[in-house]
Parts: sequence; C-alpha cells; structure tokens
Amino acid sequence: MKINLLFTGKTKIPYIDQGVSDYFKRLKHYIPIEIIIIPDLKNTKKLSEKEIKKKEGENILKVLPVSNFIILLDEKGKEYGSVDFSGFINTKLNEGKDLCFVIGGAYGFSETVYRKANAKISLSKLTFSHQMIRMIIAEQLYRAFTILRNEPYHHA
Amino acid sequence: MKINLLFTGKTKIPYIDQGVSDYFKRLKHYIPIEIIIIPDLKNTKKLSEKEIKKKEGENILKVLPVSNFIILLDEKGKEYGSVDFSGFINTKLNEGKDLCFVIGGAYGFSETVYRKANAKISLSKLTFSHQMIRMIIAEQLYRAFTILRNEPYHHA
Repeated sequence: MKINLLFTGKTKIPYIDQGVSDYFKRLKHYIPIEIIIIPDLKNTKKLSEKEIKKKEGENILKVLPVSNFIILLDEKGKEYGSVDFSGFINTKLNEGKDLCFVIGGAYGFSETVYRKANAKISLSKLTFSHQMIRMIIAEQLYRAFTILRNEPYHHA
Repeated sequence: MKINLLFTGKTKIPYIDQGVSDYFKRLKHYIPIEIIIIPDLKNTKKLSEKEIKKKEGENILKVLPVSNFIILLDEKGKEYGSVDFSGFINTKLNEGKDLCFVIGGAYGFSETVYRKANAKISLSKLTFSHQMIRMIIAEQLYRAFTILRNEPYHHA
C-alpha cells in the first residue's frame, strides 16, 4: 500500500516546499509515499483558463496511476473532519488500494480528469491557493496516521 | 481601521513563520495590521490541558484589545467561503471596528476567552495545528482584500 500525491506544477513558494517536505518525511515513517509533479506548462499567457485546464488535464492523465483509488482535492468535494478523514484513508488502505491524491493547477481540473476520479474531497469551504493545499493535505495525511496509530501529534 | 492577529505562543516552525511574514507584508498594502504574540508558558509539563488553557487564557486577556471586534478561530465556529469571509470583514470594517483574530494554543481557548468573543470562525471541518492556522488565516485575509478590491490573487 502506498500514497501518491500528484501536484500540478512545481511548488514555487519556498516555505510551502519546506512544509511539504517536513510532513513528507514524517509520513514516510507510516507508509510509502511519493510526490509526482506535473511539469509546468510553457507559454500560458496566450491560453484561456479553459485551455490551461485542458492541457494540464492531458498531462495529469499521462502520469495518473489509474490502478490507484483517485481522490481529487476539489472545492466541490466532500468535507471531512480529521477523524473521519483518517477513517476514510484506513478503509481504502484496508481494501488493498493505493491512494492517489491529485491537486490541480490554479484553475482546477478539466472534465477528463473529473471522469477519472473515484472521490472528491474538499479541505474547507474556504478557497486555498493550490500551493497552500499541498501543505495542508500533507499535514492532514500526517495527522490521519497519528490518529490511526493513536500517537501524539508532533507540532514541530 | 486595523486588523490585529493575536497568536498564543511563538511561531516555532520556520516555514510557517516565513509564510505568515509573506502574507503579512502583502496585507500591509491594504490595511494596518499587527501581530501580537502571547509569550509561551514555562514549565508546562506538570500542567494539565485545562490548566494550560486557563493560564494561556489569562495571558490572552491581559493583552486582548477589548475595544476590537474579537474573532476566535475555533473549530466550533461558523464556516465561511472566501467570498463570504471577505464580505464579513468588509461589513465589520465599515462599521468602524478594528478586528482582532485570536488563535489559541494547542488545546484551544479557556471559558474566560470564549466569554470575550464577538464571533467564532472555523477555517475547516478539519483540525489544523495552531501553527498552520496562523498561515491559513494570513492567506485568507490577503485573499479577502484581493476579493474586496477586485484584484488578482498573486500566488507567489
């Protein structure tokens, strides 16, 4: 069993990158985990939002581990509390599934990506930047495993 | 009009500190803003959670700007979307109020602090660490002002 995190575009903000790396290191104690980065599109200035989503979607589909249980982080998704979220992860892992959490680009997902999703999860009613979402999901995954193992949450 | 952010304890995680500083700098273009840090308690190992909350609460009350509209970030609070959150801030500022957002320590707020609150806001159904919440509220305040000014959101 394994968790894949698929990020659309490089993490450009240094403190987000550090935060993701920190939680990534902690998570590796619990489960194999891999971050897959979709390369940034080039020459996006002439593209509409829809065209950007479409091209990003094509690039996501090229590398999406389709045998995984695919979870999009999406504002239209289901909202969980942290305990329920840990239960959700536990259930899926117990079913023998690898999980792939997908974070889209600044404008969200194309329809083709939505069609590949097994679940959609929303982290909040608030809109977070797609960079912040990386750190938040990493923290929530770490928190989920501390809950499942009944271990104290280490804040730093 | 001004926004105060009251944090319980120093920000101990360097990347969180950098994130807060980043959004703080951006926010200053829109509104005067100040971060007030409640000093960390000493010798907490012998204290129960309740005692820690009580002592932290006493320290919060010493510096709480009581003339402000006091908003606790609390899991029992109201959840907003980002647009509604910007509307909430706008309404309060238009009423001529300074706003003080208060983030508690690891165990939350004491009853005495709850009694001083004018509003409670929850950032998510998920539980975030009180360190992460600092960065998330800073980002949401920045986002709120970009929404109110109808300006593009700058991701980095």
